[in-house]
Amino acid sequence: MSGTHGSVVRVGVIGCGYWGPNLIRNFARHDGARVTAVCDADVERADKMAGWYSVPLITSDPAELIESKSVDLVVVATPSRTHYALAKQAILAGKHVLVMKPMTTQVDHAKELVDLAARQGVMLAVDHTFVYSGAVRKMRELVVSGELGDVYYVDSVRINLGIFQSDVNVIWDLAAHDVSILDYILGGIEPTDVTAVSAAHAGSWAENIAYLTMRFPPDVLAHVHVNWLAPAKIRRTIIGGSRRMAVYDDIHPSEKLLVYDRGVSIAPWSDPEDVYTALVSYRSGDMSAPNLDAREALAVEVDHLLDCIATGIAPIADGHSGLRTVRILEAANISSGSRQPPRTSWDGDAEKSDLVPIPIDTLAG
Amino acid sequence: MSGTHGSVVRVGVIGCGYWGPNLIRNFARHDGARVTAVCDADVERADKMAGWYSVPLITSDPAELIESKSVDLVVVATPSRTHYALAKQAILAGKHVLVMKPMTTQVDHAKELVDLAARQGVMLAVDHTFVYSGAVRKMRELVVSGELGDVYYVDSVRINLGIFQSDVNVIWDLAAHDVSILDYILGGIEPTDVTAVSAAHAGSWAENIAYLTMRFPPDVLAHVHVNWLAPAKIRRTIIGGSRRMAVYDDIHPSEKLLVYDRGVSIAPWSDPEDVYTALVSYRSGDMSAPNLDAREALAVEVDHLLDCIATGIAPIADGHSGLRTVRILEAANISSGSRQPPRTSWDGDAEKSDLVPIPIDTLAG
Amino acid sequence: MSGTHGSVVRVGVIGCGYWGPNLIRNFARHDGARVTAVCDADVERADKMAGWYSVPLITSDPAELIESKSVDLVVVATPSRTHYALAKQAILAGKHVLVMKPMTTQVDHAKELVDLAARQGVMLAVDHTFVYSGAVRKMRELVVSGELGDVYYVDSVRINLGIFQSDVNVIWDLAAHDVSILDYILGGIEPTDVTAVSAAHAGSWAENIAYLTMRFPPDVLAHVHVNWLAPAKIRRTIIGGSRRMAVYDDIHPSEKLLVYDRGVSIAPWSDPEDVYTALVSYRSGDMSAPNLDAREALAVEVDHLLDCIATGIAPIADGHSGLRTVRILEAANISSGSRQPPRTSWDGDAEKSDLVPIPIDTLAG
Amino acid sequence: MSGTHGSVVRVGVIGCGYWGPNLIRNFARHDGARVTAVCDADVERADKMAGWYSVPLITSDPAELIESKSVDLVVVATPSRTHYALAKQAILAGKHVLVMKPMTTQVDHAKELVDLAARQGVMLAVDHTFVYSGAVRKMRELVVSGELGDVYYVDSVRINLGIFQSDVNVIWDLAAHDVSILDYILGGIEPTDVTAVSAAHAGSWAENIAYLTMRFPPDVLAHVHVNWLAPAKIRRTIIGGSRRMAVYDDIHPSEKLLVYDRGVSIAPWSDPEDVYTALVSYRSGDMSAPNLDAREALAVEVDHLLDCIATGIAPIADGHSGLRTVRILEAANISSGSRQPPRTSWDGDAEKSDLVPIPIDTLAG
Repeated sequence: MSGTHGSVVRVGVIGCGYWGPNLIRNFARHDGARVTAVCDADVERADKMAGWYSVPLITSDPAELIESKSVDLVVVATPSRTHYALAKQAILAGKHVLVMKPMTTQVDHAKELVDLAARQGVMLAVDHTFVYSGAVRKMRELVVSGELGDVYYVDSVRINLGIFQSDVNVIWDLAAHDVSILDYILGGIEPTDVTAVSAAHAGSWAENIAYLTMRFPPDVLAHVHVNWLAPAKIRRTIIGGSRRMAVYDDIHPSEKLLVYDRGVSIAPWSDPEDVYTALVSYRSGDMSAPNLDAREALAVEVDHLLDCIATGIAPIADGHSGLRTVRILEAANISSGSRQPPRTSWDGDAEKSDLVPIPIDTLAG
Repeated sequence: MSGTHGSVVRVGVIGCGYWGPNLIRNFARHDGARVTAVCDADVERADKMAGWYSVPLITSDPAELIESKSVDLVVVATPSRTHYALAKQAILAGKHVLVMKPMTTQVDHAKELVDLAARQGVMLAVDHTFVYSGAVRKMRELVVSGELGDVYYVDSVRINLGIFQSDVNVIWDLAAHDVSILDYILGGIEPTDVTAVSAAHAGSWAENIAYLTMRFPPDVLAHVHVNWLAPAKIRRTIIGGSRRMAVYDDIHPSEKLLVYDRGVSIAPWSDPEDVYTALVSYRSGDMSAPNLDAREALAVEVDHLLDCIATGIAPIADGHSGLRTVRILEAANISSGSRQPPRTSWDGDAEKSDLVPIPIDTLAG
Repeated sequence: MSGTHGSVVRVGVIGCGYWGPNLIRNFARHDGARVTAVCDADVERADKMAGWYSVPLITSDPAELIESKSVDLVVVATPSRTHYALAKQAILAGKHVLVMKPMTTQVDHAKELVDLAARQGVMLAVDHTFVYSGAVRKMRELVVSGELGDVYYVDSVRINLGIFQSDVNVIWDLAAHDVSILDYILGGIEPTDVTAVSAAHAGSWAENIAYLTMRFPPDVLAHVHVNWLAPAKIRRTIIGGSRRMAVYDDIHPSEKLLVYDRGVSIAPWSDPEDVYTALVSYRSGDMSAPNLDAREALAVEVDHLLDCIATGIAPIADGHSGLRTVRILEAANISSGSRQPPRTSWDGDAEKSDLVPIPIDTLAG
Repeated sequence: MSGTHGSVVRVGVIGCGYWGPNLIRNFARHDGARVTAVCDADVERADKMAGWYSVPLITSDPAELIESKSVDLVVVATPSRTHYALAKQAILAGKHVLVMKPMTTQVDHAKELVDLAARQGVMLAVDHTFVYSGAVRKMRELVVSGELGDVYYVDSVRINLGIFQSDVNVIWDLAAHDVSILDYILGGIEPTDVTAVSAAHAGSWAENIAYLTMRFPPDVLAHVHVNWLAPAKIRRTIIGGSRRMAVYDDIHPSEKLLVYDRGVSIAPWSDPEDVYTALVSYRSGDMSAPNLDAREALAVEVDHLLDCIATGIAPIADGHSGLRTVRILEAANISSGSRQPPRTSWDGDAEKSDLVPIPIDTLAG
């Protein structure tokens, strides 16, 4: 296990592309951390980050950063297909690890990382950024406190004219957000089955649109719509509960979470022969927008992770959460007949079984 | 075939509940029509309509209205499960017929009505109101003119804290709108398969939330989300095309249709070994809101139907369109394992095969 | 005073243009009323209404309607400049009167109608429709109950690509709504002064844009922006109070009224020499949307007026409210230097004094 | 005049409060600049900035920064009342200067800075950030190209639960944005008169709500509503033109500028006695959202200013623009009877003349 240098955690970041700089900025601005190493295949990018944040070690070789004695926490902010190998190497080197989502692109890999981290006694965290946002934490509260009642369904839409990722499809890229939010607000329970359908357009080999359906016990229907090829940006999650319903609109500049005191009650019919006489009563009460923590989610996350390293407590988005998320994403890929991931971890025949729900227990992890 | 009394079409309306009064008002206000008969099991409701619109014949017996010599066009605005029997009776009596959506709740019934109407030489129209709206007609134009390019996908959401219907689930009730819009804008082609998932909450026997997936040739992915138990009202259809994309928001008070000059082009990679080097180029041009015909869709429809009766031309939403819509809705119900409809028209075993895509050709009609 | 024929009020409507038909429909559909006469200079329009609603007396002569023994309540739905003469004639004939807004286009005329109605013992009501809407009534409640605290300001915007009226400018046409809403929610107090600025564009003689400023005791700043020549429709009133603030957005399809638990408190500074050290504390609590009565405002109004006739109680929007509204509108016109109204009621010289605040007490009424 | 050190401009920033760090970041990240000095009364804040951006000179004494040989451009990001003295000192020291808005809080001070900068041959720029945004630049294009036709009116709203400034009222703070936008899109013409009304609530000495009216030649009515005490955030500018109208909504996450092909034409009446027969024709065409430059406005500004320093060309928001803006703001303060600014530059008696339009030519500058 990595010792911390005094009380300041020394952070090495691999990957200075789109998201890496945000991580670097947040760790660099935190009193409890120092960015001591950056790595990128594109040396110019690493140089720029090092210049901006006075980082002493600059390298294009991940191994050099991972092995560096001046690094306690390795942040893996590289393309998805490389997460597993880099995280594994870091864990084996006794470093704490923060991996971008998805943690890996195969269930067996995710399982292996979780086991390794436990054995090495290091922290394995996944950058499920949204679970650290004020709106998602409030949703979790609404579920836990029972304010929403029994959860009936969760409907999540995340669409945009988005960046076509070079190594994963839209399920691995965007649905990772929605599935990790689901994992968090439902308390880490796993779905009984996952079904998905997807399509690849515009000449791409990678699916750019997908619909995922999950059934969670006891009786929650969850659905995710992700799309890289939509004209307008929508990021909206609806939770329907027996007592209240909530709408989380991440695009709204101020009121991101609305809670509706609305619902329906249906009295059981006395005469089972006459289902058409069921008494339906509607409740249409007030709507309210609870005040939310407005801090940048990434800043909350960084603060939380540094605290976890200091205390040894597992982070909210730990390796288990990462693994559960990867299990669902892999099941969705298989169900949809996607060519992703390379099927090393799956002995079924996806081509013949597309659109059949994938029982989550059949996956390797 | 029913003769028209001079040039004025005499209309009898069965059902004075929620939607019937709107139909009565629109026929009564049109110079080319007269409402000569109204019928409702609840005589007070029929009386009220007759009083408001000076209707001579009031009855609680549909047969009396259908057989009346003063009725040329029978409008069936009753609960869905009664559409088939009433429409059949009217067609056999030689009357033109306008049936609310869904035309029937079984494919074989829908097929029978289409055949009967052809034999009797009467007009069989379905009240797919939305296809007569300015926004949907403009969407059809955008597809036909090629302005959108190849259609990649259609995503439709129609959710609300809606009225729980007493005799059908949310698929038959709400998805009927989206599927008939799809049928119209895609030009009446049929999907190759239909998959659906649904759930019944709040103690209801009827499904209140459903997700339908359809694949249309050559390569269109269509998806419909309907929900009676959503806190906020959303009615939005997105069409993604290779050249442009359109968003139809029926709730917007003024700009209901936005057309985005946005898209993605992906150059085929030269090196098939290296898929990660594909060149993606994004196009993010202007957005525009075409000016739309703002007339009430129902008034446009009434005008069109009266014209069809006068000229003998088939209406835009004719029995064939009604049948195609019912085929998709029945396939969706079967795929989702719904207890609806009574399976007289289906010899498969839905309980065992739920979530398997239903090939559209296996249906009776 | 007009007797009511049994318990059913017999209504005669003068003017079957844009708004008249809505009034006719609402009175005709009410059990406590019957539309017994309609009048329009355009006989075809009157005929159409009479046909739709089975009205026995049709005329193009207002006097005939007013003098008719079968009319208890005269509804004046004609261009603004004719309101005074027609309402006066009806009151003198002993009829109850409902006048569209603005009640008159001169303060002295309004005053005269109020006095006459009192002398004749008839109801004089003004169609300030919005004060009967669920949202405005709730705003009144929020003010009366003290939930908003002290009212600091009211800001009202009502703009659109609207109909250029043929006989009045945008102040008389649109600001009449906002000013009557202000009159209602502030409880009928009068402003100490009124200032306005306006402009006439597009070749029109009538002002199409105007900004009105009013100061109400003890310390309320009210402002109204009206515009017939705006590209988008906005109808929004903000009330800022010391405890809470409310936003009424009449365009929103569902949540028309939002109440914000937000505000600012400023501690008085101890050192009067150093104003820059004042302690400001911000309160940013929840937002909520109270559930509102969703009935059509006009239906609520008709119900209320029939009740007022039956009981002799003054309506919410009575002649006094109409007079107060006209006083503000006339002051605004004078302040802005508008050519409206013909200055029979004003002995000042508006051309020289434009933009000077008009003390409300100097007006005739 | 300040020489530039090679081609890299050396920047010293006074004020590390709210906005200063954004300026520091943008200059520090630009290849053509280096932040060589920071100054703040709160040394900790200056230290933090220096640490983050490796700034060699840290001081709490503005004079030390201004006199430093390693500074070419002095950025004044301090409270408004200190702008004049600091900018003057910097200009006299031969430095280029960028001052936050408002440039000064008195017209005579602004005039003096403009004259001094001309005499010293240094650049005097004002941080009117919004004029560098994609949306405002596009609005300017629409006006210049004649696409909007003649400008009829400009209506600007900028309200929020904003920070109560410690040294200026809402006119100096927020209206500075709207007035500088007006100055830019109307091409630097000055209004013929300015009227304003304002109020101070919540125990503050400083006005928190204000309405400004300006008339620009030949016939433009401009209006600005600013408010620190509004429950919701609105930042919206509407331009009404004879050919088209535009709405700029700065809060919208994607489509910030909408252009409407809408308008009204009124045919002159042939019979001057009968104004009520004027023929009004409405044009309701398409709406479009032109694609905008999405770069951060501040980055565009920094790039532009460095270019201006290199070439000697005057920046878009130069001292003259700053002076014109201050003239309007001071006139508005006087018209509204505000206690701001200290009236050293005004010999009128505002207390007696409040709400009288202030002819812009009577101001000192």
